[in-house]
Amino acid sequence: MGNRKLLKLGALIHGVGGNISGWRHPDVPADASVSFPFYKQQAQTAEAGKFDLLFIADGLYINEQSIPHFLNRFEPITILSALAAATTHIGLVGTLSSSYSEPFTVARQFGSIDHISGGRAGWNIVTSPLEGSARNYSKAQHPSHDERYQIAEEYLEVVRGLWDSWEDDAFVRDKESGVFFNPDKLHRLNHLGKYFSIEGPLNIARSRQGHPVVFQAGSSESGKRLAALSADAVFTGHDTIEEAKAFYKDVKDRTVLAGRSRDDIVILPGIGPIIGRTQEEAERKYEELAGLVSIEKALDYLGRFFDHHDFRQYPLDDPFPELGDIGANSFRSGTDKIKRYAKEHGLTLRQVALRSATPRTAFIGTPEKIADLIQQWYEEEAADGFIISPPLPGWLKDFVELVVPILQERGLFRTEYESDTLRGNLGLRVPANRYTAAVQLNT
Amino acid sequence: MGNRKLLKLGALIHGVGGNISGWRHPDVPADASVSFPFYKQQAQTAEAGKFDLLFIADGLYINEQSIPHFLNRFEPITILSALAAATTHIGLVGTLSSSYSEPFTVARQFGSIDHISGGRAGWNIVTSPLEGSARNYSKAQHPSHDERYQIAEEYLEVVRGLWDSWEDDAFVRDKESGVFFNPDKLHRLNHLGKYFSIEGPLNIARSRQGHPVVFQAGSSESGKRLAALSADAVFTGHDTIEEAKAFYKDVKDRTVLAGRSRDDIVILPGIGPIIGRTQEEAERKYEELAGLVSIEKALDYLGRFFDHHDFRQYPLDDPFPELGDIGANSFRSGTDKIKRYAKEHGLTLRQVALRSATPRTAFIGTPEKIADLIQQWYEEEAADGFIISPPLPGWLKDFVELVVPILQERGLFRTEYESDTLRGNLGLRVPANRYTAAVQLNT
Ligand SMILES: Cc1cc2nc3c(=O)[nH]c(=O)nc-3n(C[C@H](O)[C@H](O)[C@H](O)COP(=O)(O)O)c2cc1C
Ligand SMILES: Cc1cc2nc3c(=O)[nH]c(=O)nc-3n(C[C@H](O)[C@H](O)[C@H](O)COP(=O)(O)O)c2cc1C
Repeated sequence: MGNRKLLKLGALIHGVGGNISGWRHPDVPADASVSFPFYKQQAQTAEAGKFDLLFIADGLYINEQSIPHFLNRFEPITILSALAAATTHIGLVGTLSSSYSEPFTVARQFGSIDHISGGRAGWNIVTSPLEGSARNYSKAQHPSHDERYQIAEEYLEVVRGLWDSWEDDAFVRDKESGVFFNPDKLHRLNHLGKYFSIEGPLNIARSRQGHPVVFQAGSSESGKRLAALSADAVFTGHDTIEEAKAFYKDVKDRTVLAGRSRDDIVILPGIGPIIGRTQEEAERKYEELAGLVSIEKALDYLGRFFDHHDFRQYPLDDPFPELGDIGANSFRSGTDKIKRYAKEHGLTLRQVALRSATPRTAFIGTPEKIADLIQQWYEEEAADGFIISPPLPGWLKDFVELVVPILQERGLFRTEYESDTLRGNLGLRVPANRYTAAVQLNT
Repeated sequence: MGNRKLLKLGALIHGVGGNISGWRHPDVPADASVSFPFYKQQAQTAEAGKFDLLFIADGLYINEQSIPHFLNRFEPITILSALAAATTHIGLVGTLSSSYSEPFTVARQFGSIDHISGGRAGWNIVTSPLEGSARNYSKAQHPSHDERYQIAEEYLEVVRGLWDSWEDDAFVRDKESGVFFNPDKLHRLNHLGKYFSIEGPLNIARSRQGHPVVFQAGSSESGKRLAALSADAVFTGHDTIEEAKAFYKDVKDRTVLAGRSRDDIVILPGIGPIIGRTQEEAERKYEELAGLVSIEKALDYLGRFFDHHDFRQYPLDDPFPELGDIGANSFRSGTDKIKRYAKEHGLTLRQVALRSATPRTAFIGTPEKIADLIQQWYEEEAADGFIISPPLPGWLKDFVELVVPILQERGLFRTEYESDTLRGNLGLRVPANRYTAAVQLNT
């Protein structure tokens, strides 16, 4: 591990937050999900903490049971672009679904953010778990879990091809001779596939980092396959270090099997640290947060993962219901885990719902304890770094002010940005343009 | 005309510019089309000049003959969002095609820019003139001119419906009771149409200006029909004041026939002023610009309007060729005009190509002359204002510094922004939410 890359850190910026009732907390501005000043402040806090990136999640279907943040929030492409103008070094990663969008547009939009930000864009390719998305996109049917991933694989191949439309030295811009570009360095993709047929070329060049950094966030078999084939980074989630280590090894091994190097993919679990000056203070913060959630809201929250299944129909204190296939075409890796966990621990529906709404993870305690855990996960190869997803949005500041300095002191985390591109900071190579013979150097 | 609105001004920000060889001019940064510092500076210049809006054009297909700006430029949603963070009052209008996009995504993206900017977003709905666009979007066929406009009408209806998903007082956000929103104020569109079926609701609320301002930029019969039905503003282009007056009257009359008021639509022709301290200096600037364009480049430029027709095949000094229907499914209003004009004036292909590449309009001369023409067009109801499309990008500054003060002195143009929303500055009403009984007030 002598030459292992330093720890990487991302910040999920998530408006009023992922907890269904967190917005009720006095510290949370209740309009945070559509407040640009709030997003700007969070991004600047993360940048002051030398974070590698900020991360914007997304979804394409809501109903009355959705969590408050999902009901009324910024669209990722727009908020990332705006934040590009308000920051200088931090990476800008956003979620966009390959099931309900067009590769030409998406390649352009991330390519354009990459230019606006000087090489800091990242795309989290997801396949959209929610069935209802189809009804917002004039589609008769939500594609199955497997088909969504087949679409995603072809989609990503097309987008990477479009990003390579122009070789890096294509734009000559010689005012004297009037030659703007060299036509030999312009390439049409001429892709004819199962789901897409796309001629190209794209009407934007590569940026300084070659391609925007591609994230993958599904943890199912097909999700891991996509990650190993072509992703630069994985956003994942684990309850225990053992689970995280198994996942880490699995994805790194698959990446090597796919003909790439272990260092070509960065694995970043999401964690939601709750920090107190003492363990007791941290515990009190957890209880305060959990106490905001009514059982009805907790059932709604659980339902969304099972494609808005109505859990209010079951007795609360009976064992967690048998759900058969419900949820399997939605957030599969997550719903499988919940079903398994409930059975193993003999939990009631009430217990499952409340624990899902306000997860009680190991990352609750003093700054030293959080730093110790982060170091352990990093050193034992459970993670290359983390996406900090604070249970309450304001708590990002606590992490930056209290935990980051400890990580820096221990030599685990940077004190200055190494690069001003996202790839540069993540220690990822600039991908060679597929049409260019010569090998590209690192940024 | 006693209570007529003041003159409105927009600025087309267009990278290296619309002239096919303008990038060769020493004043033009040759990478302007992908330079965020350049866009930011232009936007801030326009804002210093109290312009109502900046305008971003777009296109979805390029080839080797495209003008330099089109080959490698920012995508509109991203650059508008970034400029939202770099400006405070100016409107942010961008082009997005209804032929190759999804209403749910587009409604979200403009809604999101509208929140990020505090109510300054505008959408120029276009139908995509270029056949090749289909090949970048997995489509067997580019829809016909008529069908594109049928799609556009339904599309705009859907987007306006999605924007109304949440009534303005839907978000209660009462921390005490835990009520985040009032479900009676949430509405599903449940649209089932010829081209789209969309359930909703949209996952973003209306902004302070209700709906982003909708621009329309086609001047054909179907274009004018769409404008009269539902647009808030029209971006158009005319060679003479007579033509502009006829267009103005026609669109205003159609708008009244469609049951709206004359003041509900703002008509803004594009002009490309060339300003000199003397008429001679302005003429020299024109000649300098025209002199950069070779005849080959001029033929390429002309070809794009005729769906990349190859004009190099014809003798240069013969009369402009008979083209039959070529161009009619593309930029129809423009190609019709070129064909007519060439015939009426007995022009050769060389003449048509060079004049199209570097149009010699009336707006060449001293600041006073330009101001006089603007005043005349405005007072004679040829225009409610103008989109300034400087033939060279740097020339926006000349207009702001030399012409705007004259217009202000004459009481034709504001000296301070009246509002901080685009609708407020354009003097357009905030559209009532279709689900809300009560009448809305102006911003
Ligand atoms: C940590 C994490 C973050 C995710 N973020 C998103 C997101 O923002 N939007 C989304 O539509 N799906 C998101 N997903 C869902 C997945 O992309 C995927 O659609 C779903 O989990 C089903 O795929 P899987 O079974 O491979 O996990 C996320 C999943 C994980 C594990
Ligand atoms: C002043 C003006 C600006 C236009 N800007 C764009 C543009 O940025 N992108 C685009 O695809 N089409 C643009 N168009 C083209 C029209 O939207 C339309 O697709 C084309 O002109 C055919 O429609 P028409 O025959 O109604 O004019 C513009 C047209 C005019 C007159």
